Amino acid sequence: MSLLRYDPATNDWVVFSPERSRRPHDAGGPPTAPSSGAADCPFCPGHEDRTPPEILSRRDGPGGSWTVRVIPNKFAVLSPSSEHEHVEEGPLFRRLGGYGAHEIVIEAPEHDRFLGHQPVEQIDRVLRALHARFNALAQDTRLRAVVAFKNHGAAAGTSLRHPHWQIIATPVVPRQMRVKSAIATDYFDRTGRCVYCDLLTEERAAGIRVIVAGEDYTAVLPYASATPYQVRVMPRVHRASFGRVPEEELGRLAPVLREVLGRLYAGLGDPAFNLTIATAPRGDEHKPSGHWHVDILPRLTTPAGFELGSGMAINTVLPEDAAEHLRRAVPAAAGNAPATCP
Amino acid sequence: MSLLRYDPATNDWVVFSPERSRRPHDAGGPPTAPSSGAADCPFCPGHEDRTPPEILSRRDGPGGSWTVRVIPNKFAVLSPSSEHEHVEEGPLFRRLGGYGAHEIVIEAPEHDRFLGHQPVEQIDRVLRALHARFNALAQDTRLRAVVAFKNHGAAAGTSLRHPHWQIIATPVVPRQMRVKSAIATDYFDRTGRCVYCDLLTEERAAGIRVIVAGEDYTAVLPYASATPYQVRVMPRVHRASFGRVPEEELGRLAPVLREVLGRLYAGLGDPAFNLTIATAPRGDEHKPSGHWHVDILPRLTTPAGFELGSGMAINTVLPEDAAEHLRRAVPAAAGNAPATCP
Repeated sequence: MSLLRYDPATNDWVVFSPERSRRPHDAGGPPTAPSSGAADCPFCPGHEDRTPPEILSRRDGPGGSWTVRVIPNKFAVLSPSSEHEHVEEGPLFRRLGGYGAHEIVIEAPEHDRFLGHQPVEQIDRVLRALHARFNALAQDTRLRAVVAFKNHGAAAGTSLRHPHWQIIATPVVPRQMRVKSAIATDYFDRTGRCVYCDLLTEERAAGIRVIVAGEDYTAVLPYASATPYQVRVMPRVHRASFGRVPEEELGRLAPVLREVLGRLYAGLGDPAFNLTIATAPRGDEHKPSGHWHVDILPRLTTPAGFELGSGMAINTVLPEDAAEHLRRAVPAAAGNAPATCP
Repeated sequence: MSLLRYDPATNDWVVFSPERSRRPHDAGGPPTAPSSGAADCPFCPGHEDRTPPEILSRRDGPGGSWTVRVIPNKFAVLSPSSEHEHVEEGPLFRRLGGYGAHEIVIEAPEHDRFLGHQPVEQIDRVLRALHARFNALAQDTRLRAVVAFKNHGAAAGTSLRHPHWQIIATPVVPRQMRVKSAIATDYFDRTGRCVYCDLLTEERAAGIRVIVAGEDYTAVLPYASATPYQVRVMPRVHRASFGRVPEEELGRLAPVLREVLGRLYAGLGDPAFNLTIATAPRGDEHKPSGHWHVDILPRLTTPAGFELGSGMAINTVLPEDAAEHLRRAVPAAAGNAPATCP
């Protein structure tokens, strides 16, 4: 069973999940190179009995087959069957039961197709499944935050190749969410404005770091990017929570995401990356200071002692140079190619 | 030339160092396996002319040869020849020149010997060189922090195999130092005590996570370790800055460090790791709330989207289990073996 422990010297909660070390691994080799693992893959069609019972699926494929499928993670970091209680183990040592949720969103029936090469309609199905699960988990008052993310490639920490997202819901507010929320609130209190809206306005005016300048979403490599080729997809409409995005606006994200992923794939040769949805913690959904967004973090360099010891990032590529490179990259052609960027 | 940029949404400064991507690499393969690279190694004796002019050396080897050597990093992240000025590039975009220092401490003349297998005297020489350079850099009032660290193995981000440490001095206080200092100050203001002293007392009383219980230093796998097999070496004497450690007390660190590194090597089969010295930023050296220490972070797992997106760590090994394993590991015998642990 997993649990959380509190560090009074950093105010961080750490999740302990000894079961995770027993996960199967098949993710060696280049991220999307064809693998021989489909026959054994628990996420492939026909192998539905190898996963825990499904939570949600979209059955609009040929003959009513599923196109997107959500299941509990068999090697869950946090689980609804764990306890949810604080225990004092000493004057400074405190732990909390590993209550939470850990779900897998299987992106598509295909074992090997890269998300950025899927039709826009399929990316849209994935986003809608994430949105539905995000909001379902946010109903549970014992959960404080929902983190949705995708790992692509072994260097990005994925253990199974079949393309999937994960959703982890936590019983405490994770550090980064807490810190970013506090900074945005402070900025709002001082200026009456959202720091993300202001950053977006400034990036769009500068232009040199923008790779997709759509009406509803802007893809930009931020001025102070912590890693090479970090891409942030920012919605124009200011809204703290991903869960509150209306259907119609959500529907306009898929083509932008497809274009960004296609440019990263073409420009960097299928890099490993992590994709996360930054959003407000539970209870802050209606705060005027938050602004949800998508962050894509290619794993091109290895953080070392300086970064781990100081918390300060070293980035070896200026984002305006990286943006120039991605604007020139040509995403794979497809029947569903999105509008090209400026 | 490198520079720093500020992110108003996180309050973090990011270092941009485009030159770093041109570094040579020879660090593939297992961390300390013999490599054929010695002939080309710029850190080996006889190749002194391949490095920038040395800053410091200890010449007590055979025939007056060097035993430890400090040089500027040829691919410096920050440099004393860079500018030190703030520039506003827009309402929210601010940058700072890459003024600072980046030095290499070559641990020993041998190209391939692991630090934990060096004689205690050699480890002591390294610590004294680090201490001397730490204090020399701390004289510069334009620098706000000095970060000393060691990367071992390619998975820990090292690019050259010949064992070395690095020292980076920064013109701003890095996030982690700022956050830890603020939390320790708050704890002190509330309780009148140091949070690290209290943690040390509690860990020594519990005992199950301690691997070396010396009089001056304790090596412990912290209760809320963020990564598997994280080891913290804590001095008993409460002191904010590594630079203020007196000679005699510094001299008692080498055998403890040797034992810890030897146990990690034996117990985990020469793992890649980062070692950092946590210390107070400039100006906080005499604060009653800080407590310097050494952190060793083996790189056994890959942080993925959840960790990067939330700032929350997932640890797959309980520190008390890891400590049990390391207490049973047998470090390599040597003429200079330190006293065994309890």
